[in-house]
Amino acid sequence: MSTILLSNARLVDGRRVNIFIRDKFIGAVAPASEPAGAMSLADRVIDCSNFCAVPGLVNAHTHAAMTLMRGVGKGLSLQSWLNMIWGIEANLDPESIYWGSKLAILEMIKCGTTCFNDMYWYVPQVREAVEDMGTRALLNYVVLDGGDAARGLAQRDECLKVAEMSRGWSDRVTLGIAIHADYTVNEDNMLWAGRTARELGAKLHVHISETEHEVNDDIAKYGKTPVRHFDDLGLIDSNFIGAHGLWLTDEDIEILGSRGASVVHNINSNLMLSSGYRFKYNELRDAGVNVCIGTDGCASSDNQDVRESMKTMALLQHAWRNDPQAMPLGELLDVATVNGARALGINAGRIEEGALADIALVNMRTPELVPDIDFLSNFVFAANSSCVDTVICNGRIVMEGRKVAGEDEILAKAEEQAWKLMKKAK
Amino acid sequence: MSTILLSNARLVDGRRVNIFIRDKFIGAVAPASEPAGAMSLADRVIDCSNFCAVPGLVNAHTHAAMTLMRGVGKGLSLQSWLNMIWGIEANLDPESIYWGSKLAILEMIKCGTTCFNDMYWYVPQVREAVEDMGTRALLNYVVLDGGDAARGLAQRDECLKVAEMSRGWSDRVTLGIAIHADYTVNEDNMLWAGRTARELGAKLHVHISETEHEVNDDIAKYGKTPVRHFDDLGLIDSNFIGAHGLWLTDEDIEILGSRGASVVHNINSNLMLSSGYRFKYNELRDAGVNVCIGTDGCASSDNQDVRESMKTMALLQHAWRNDPQAMPLGELLDVATVNGARALGINAGRIEEGALADIALVNMRTPELVPDIDFLSNFVFAANSSCVDTVICNGRIVMEGRKVAGEDEILAKAEEQAWKLMKKAK
Repeated sequence: MSTILLSNARLVDGRRVNIFIRDKFIGAVAPASEPAGAMSLADRVIDCSNFCAVPGLVNAHTHAAMTLMRGVGKGLSLQSWLNMIWGIEANLDPESIYWGSKLAILEMIKCGTTCFNDMYWYVPQVREAVEDMGTRALLNYVVLDGGDAARGLAQRDECLKVAEMSRGWSDRVTLGIAIHADYTVNEDNMLWAGRTARELGAKLHVHISETEHEVNDDIAKYGKTPVRHFDDLGLIDSNFIGAHGLWLTDEDIEILGSRGASVVHNINSNLMLSSGYRFKYNELRDAGVNVCIGTDGCASSDNQDVRESMKTMALLQHAWRNDPQAMPLGELLDVATVNGARALGINAGRIEEGALADIALVNMRTPELVPDIDFLSNFVFAANSSCVDTVICNGRIVMEGRKVAGEDEILAKAEEQAWKLMKKAK
Repeated sequence: MSTILLSNARLVDGRRVNIFIRDKFIGAVAPASEPAGAMSLADRVIDCSNFCAVPGLVNAHTHAAMTLMRGVGKGLSLQSWLNMIWGIEANLDPESIYWGSKLAILEMIKCGTTCFNDMYWYVPQVREAVEDMGTRALLNYVVLDGGDAARGLAQRDECLKVAEMSRGWSDRVTLGIAIHADYTVNEDNMLWAGRTARELGAKLHVHISETEHEVNDDIAKYGKTPVRHFDDLGLIDSNFIGAHGLWLTDEDIEILGSRGASVVHNINSNLMLSSGYRFKYNELRDAGVNVCIGTDGCASSDNQDVRESMKTMALLQHAWRNDPQAMPLGELLDVATVNGARALGINAGRIEEGALADIALVNMRTPELVPDIDFLSNFVFAANSSCVDTVICNGRIVMEGRKVAGEDEILAKAEEQAWKLMKKAK
């Protein structure tokens, strides 16, 4: 059992504390002014005089391996771009998925993210990448039949096989089930996915109400919104994680709130794709929805930087509501930490005794964090994510002094895999 | 006369070149495949195999020393916040201005910015900071009488004294004149400022059409928009640099275009303060306006990161126009480089023979820049500004390996000065 003492760390609220990490958990958080006592016998003591300890950020919606498609088809029309992406995706293989996921996780670590919620192909290889990198993830097996019954049945079989495999996974990686969206999965498979998730005790991760077009289509086809559609099928409960939720009606918000569901805002992706920007954070929060934040995949949003997304989210709330006080920063931190952890079913996102030891140490000797008048404002609005110096996940150091083990190999392999895919797609 | 060879540098367009810097200028740009010849005798050779050479970014509107107010009063109402900022500004002194400006310049260098356009108090101290840091700036003496005739006259005297001093400045620093805004300066002083700028051959830097309120006030008071007001006073020509221009009419845009004026977009500040976000980039460009980008001061926009502002600008153009192709990236790079340089009257912003040697070297071995399918998209949308490894200004290296001379002292002094001001303001 390893122990780490984070000595004299600043917390977001300004307190100075000693944080004692025992195995995977935060064993104690005590005022730095008190004698460290037995804590000082930790295997490793990190002097945090110049560090602020922030809960590890949670990226609650992504398609990690899409880092390999970063920058592809920029400037093309939506349809040409989609065709290009699909052409590349058709050639994905276990090796490309592994290295693309590792690149995504490397980026996440460098930005202080310790946990992510993935929706992509080749779950076993994504899992391998997560295990190797030392972070945490909910990996969702994607059900996407595209109206092809045989494909749907094959996915059911494969999903159950992956569920069987998942019994052997470390406790840092959990299996969930994804319904890609109600416009790509038939109702039978939606129901099967929901039932199976319930049987497995798994989360259900879906794309929902991302574009106005999608909502209008559902109304034309089913006479109801996507949220009503999912809810009428009995799929929305506290294990439901809806990505986007950008075009929700008041009734949708009420349904999501009354079911205790989670909604993940992906503002950078929404802006990049011109999907919309009037995300109803206040209304969702007030209705009891657990609001989280995500980056989406790099084909649409370019990076895996949750901290940067926090800034964009706050700025857009200020903008569309015409209110510079629209987004309280304490709530924004919760959105990016404890709310994400709650959605994913893990006891993290807070620096307190008993929580999982998922922590980012922010270097206060960073120009953008000076002067230290309001740390949280500076962290969100002024800094770039290179202020994160050290990252601990599950009680283990995964980055120190901005160095991550094996990063040169990851960059080289990911570059190679991306070009392999690009060439095949041509 | 010192010489530097940037050997085998990647350019934004993908070419591999040797860049030969002779004294302050780029002496030659030649294909890397050709023998370097005499270039290889340079005093210093930098292997740029892993670097992309980007023109130094130009921050075309800021109030540099306001870094000292970073994070102040966040969450307060606009009026309480303004009162707090004014309370602090009342206690500014030469020492705080010097260290606040140095902190701003340090941040700019770290983000690849080599030149800025400042509008703030104590120009001689800002100038000292610029000279010491090795970058370039247009420093505008601020005329702001607030309706106080005596204050206006005193400013005229002081402005002429600073103009006299400016003869002794290095060629990296130029004096301009700022009319703070037409709602804070009486017409006599506006006319004096315009006349004096013309006599000195100086730029005229103003705040204009930042808020809808400001435009409506002018219409109520003068029966015309701020742009028409300035233009009717004969103040708009090719030396005119208007900051914000967020609420322009079609006629305003036509006036600005026909005069060959520059307009500086400050999107992060506009979003933070809920001033608006429908910046008419396309219309301004098409009318012949020289569009630039700025960060504004850190009291409103928190950092001095022009690259980050480029991303926000592009995303907001996508969003409000509902068009994911709204902002061509090549034009965006021009906005942040050569257009800014043109506005400030310097021959920079391009990596080509004869231009000033203001260059940022971007480290391609950065996770967010992998894969290298579209460098410019990755630089704008994926990276954070810590990808900038080395910065050259006026042919001199001002940052190398992300280290800037004296940075620890700057952080310590700026922190101290900020708290000195905070305490006095209470």
